[in-house]
Order: sequence, then C-alpha cells, then structure tokens
Amino acid sequence: MRNILLTIEYSGKNYSGWQRQLNAPSVQQELEEGLNVVLREKVTVIGSGRTDAKVHAAGQCANFRYSGNMPAGKIAYSVNAVLPSDIRIVKAQETDIEFHAQYSAKKKTYIYKFYVSRTSSPLRQDFYAQIKCEKEKLMFDKMQKAVENLIGEHDFAGFSSTGSGITNTVRTVYNAEIANIGDEIIFSVTGNGFLYNMVRIIAGTLAYIGMGKLPENAVSEVLSTQNRKLAGKTFPAHALTLFSVEY
Amino acid sequence: MRNILLTIEYSGKNYSGWQRQLNAPSVQQELEEGLNVVLREKVTVIGSGRTDAKVHAAGQCANFRYSGNMPAGKIAYSVNAVLPSDIRIVKAQETDIEFHAQYSAKKKTYIYKFYVSRTSSPLRQDFYAQIKCEKEKLMFDKMQKAVENLIGEHDFAGFSSTGSGITNTVRTVYNAEIANIGDEIIFSVTGNGFLYNMVRIIAGTLAYIGMGKLPENAVSEVLSTQNRKLAGKTFPAHALTLFSVEY
Repeated sequence: MRNILLTIEYSGKNYSGWQRQLNAPSVQQELEEGLNVVLREKVTVIGSGRTDAKVHAAGQCANFRYSGNMPAGKIAYSVNAVLPSDIRIVKAQETDIEFHAQYSAKKKTYIYKFYVSRTSSPLRQDFYAQIKCEKEKLMFDKMQKAVENLIGEHDFAGFSSTGSGITNTVRTVYNAEIANIGDEIIFSVTGNGFLYNMVRIIAGTLAYIGMGKLPENAVSEVLSTQNRKLAGKTFPAHALTLFSVEY
Repeated sequence: MRNILLTIEYSGKNYSGWQRQLNAPSVQQELEEGLNVVLREKVTVIGSGRTDAKVHAAGQCANFRYSGNMPAGKIAYSVNAVLPSDIRIVKAQETDIEFHAQYSAKKKTYIYKFYVSRTSSPLRQDFYAQIKCEKEKLMFDKMQKAVENLIGEHDFAGFSSTGSGITNTVRTVYNAEIANIGDEIIFSVTGNGFLYNMVRIIAGTLAYIGMGKLPENAVSEVLSTQNRKLAGKTFPAHALTLFSVEY
C-alpha cells in the first residue's frame, strides 16, 4: 500500500465545498471520481479539512492510500486531464503510510481579500469582499492594530459560528498580517487550526473596525469575553482562500 | 441638451464585447437599456472604442447626450441598481457638449496578465493567460527588453490581425512596462490608439520570447518588417483589461 499526498488548487465558485455531499457538487467527489478513472481503483481522499461552499484553495492538501504502482507525477498529470478546469492537482508526492492530511496538519494559512469602494466592482466579484465605504474614510491603521491582537494562543469561541459541536475553542495564531495596495486589502492568517467561520467572522470584524462600526479594540474584546455579539458579521465565503497547509 | 461622461467597469466574461450586436449580449446594450429605464428617454452610448468578446474593462469611458435634468451622480446610482452585477458605472460627470468618447480620446492604457506554470491555475482562469513553462525557465529579462522596444511611434501593422480595414497602422506607444511578482506577470501599455488584436499579439510575442520560442529581438523585427508571421500567436482575450482612457 502507498500513501499519496496531493496539493490541490480550486475555485470554490461552483462547489458546495470540499466535502462530499449527497446532492451537491463537491471538490472531494470530483477528485475521487477523477482518481477512480485514472487508477481503476476506488480510493477515498482525506482532506486537511473542509472548506465551505464558495471558498477557494490555492494549496489544499489531501492524501489517499492506493495499492497500484503509477508514479505520483503521472497520477497528477492524468487526473488533471479528466478534472473540470476549476480544480487542478498542482503537486503529487509519495508520503509515509501513517501520514493523515487532517491529523498531521501543523499549520494552515488563509487569505481574505477585500476592496474598498462605495460601488461594487465587477472585476472583483468572485474573489473579493466589498468594504462599502469611501477609501479615504477607511481607518486602515486601526485594522492593522486589531490584526496584531490575533497573534498568540486565545479562546476564539467569539469568532466562531455556533453549531459546530467543537468544545475546545482554543487555537494558536502564529502570524497575522494585513496589507493595503490601492483600494485592495489582503488579510492573511496562519494558525494551528481554525473554528467554523472563524476567518470570515474575523474578516467582518476587521472591516467593521475600519469603517468605524466597531471600536478599535473589538478584536481583543471578543477574545477576552468570547462574545460573538461583539464581533462583526460573517463576511462572504467567496473572498476566502485556503492558501497553504504545513505538515 | 447635456452630455454625460461615464466611466465603466465590467467583466467581459459573459459578453460578446462592448459593441451592440443583433443576437449577442453586449455591454453597450446593457448600459443603454439601463439608461433608458432610468432616464425614460432613449439614449445612444458612445464608447471610447470597442472591446472584444471576453475583454474586461476597469475604466472604459463612454458618453451620451440627454435632454433631462437628472444629476450625473444620481444617474450612476440609479442605473447601477438595474445593471447586471458584472457591469458598473464607477463615475458619471457632466462634460462639454462637443465631447465624443471615441474622437476625444488621447491615450488608452491596457493591462495584460499572465501566470507562469506547467499546470493550469483554476484561480486565475478568468483573468490570466497561462505561459505554459516552468517558472525557473522563463527568461523574464528578455521580455523586459522586448517591452522597451515598443515605446515610440511605430508602424504596428505586424502586430495586428488582418481584416480590420484600417489603413493607417502607425501608432505611438507612450509607455510600456512589465512586472513579475511570484509566478505572475503584468504587462501594461499606454498608447494613442491600438490596432485590432494589437495588445493580444504583443502579449503572445512577449510570452514566446520569454519561453525562447521567438528570438529576443522579435518585437523590433516585427516593428521594422511589419511581418505578422514574425510575431507570436494572438493570446487569449480574457487576460486583457482596458484599464483607463485619458482625454
């Protein structure tokens, strides 16, 4: 038995998310069907974690166990030829038999993209969230300070949607940065794990801080009180990208 | 009679181009229909020039003459509310009655986006052209030198598709730049006018120079011989954006 680790890029636009579902298209299903065709063997793909409907990935990771002898590079090449154009295996490599894409993951990095404008932007509607505000009025310096407060080990319960069933809501954020170029803002965050909707709620909170709809200390308040109501709204999924997974 | 100048952003993905056509969706038609609804008056919108099917615009300009008294800002706001989400008026202003968006245009800037990879990239399929090559093998420095040769007044006939019917093929390029960030390359060019498919053929020529499929002096050879056969192929439309028009 071999264990193959895949790095996968996909546009989430046309999918109900990573995870296989009965009546909705998923990235996992497309990958498994492609692998089944190429390998002539039914394999189950284990992702590093779910991504929600519309969420993109530049470097999702997944593994599968397989008894055949096709080289990893040929698997990637051949499966890409049968996958829809919005999913591509960017890398395939042999890995230890015990490797598990979810349990072995040490760090994940997400990127969230905004643009700042009163008018919605047709060229950015698939990959960016709008901060509906005049660029000159946005307090980007306050967003920057708020981002610094994310770094470290915290209880992120206030930045998660209820109903996920997870009891341990403590996570460590290793790095968090926000950059502003023209009317675009890119937020990136690296952590050992993320709660349900965590990055999207942080994104909404940062946007609200920038617009003055929330106080500049809102992030630290949510972290110390775990009160979801002190955070901003859950910002849209289509602006979120799972950038990379580290093992 | 008033004359209103519009600045328009659109995704070209779902359109046969700027110009109104009988049996295909066009940006001009959507705009005129939106204006007719809001102004209750049939107006004709004059664009700075056509953009082809799939070509995007960040700052297309257009004007129309109109006898009513609705303020320009309100026109933009109201028409945006009825336009499809892939077209937006980003600015509307009063202008001189003689102003003509096509004939008054002094400079246009186009942007062409590439990524460099053996594997196609799902996240970039709508806005970037693929240079199918390993990043390490691309000779970006040769592309940079080729871009410098574009600047100045030249006969660009070799960089145009036949059948446009235009006889004067001399144009002036005021500025041309190419930048490389990670695996992405952005080419921008500003000129007093562009021939049919000119930017897309230049883009294809630059890509071929980078890959070593054309000699590094290909741009100057095409400019001195006007021989289309010495240039690269016409690169895809979806990676081209009309960035701005100057008057």
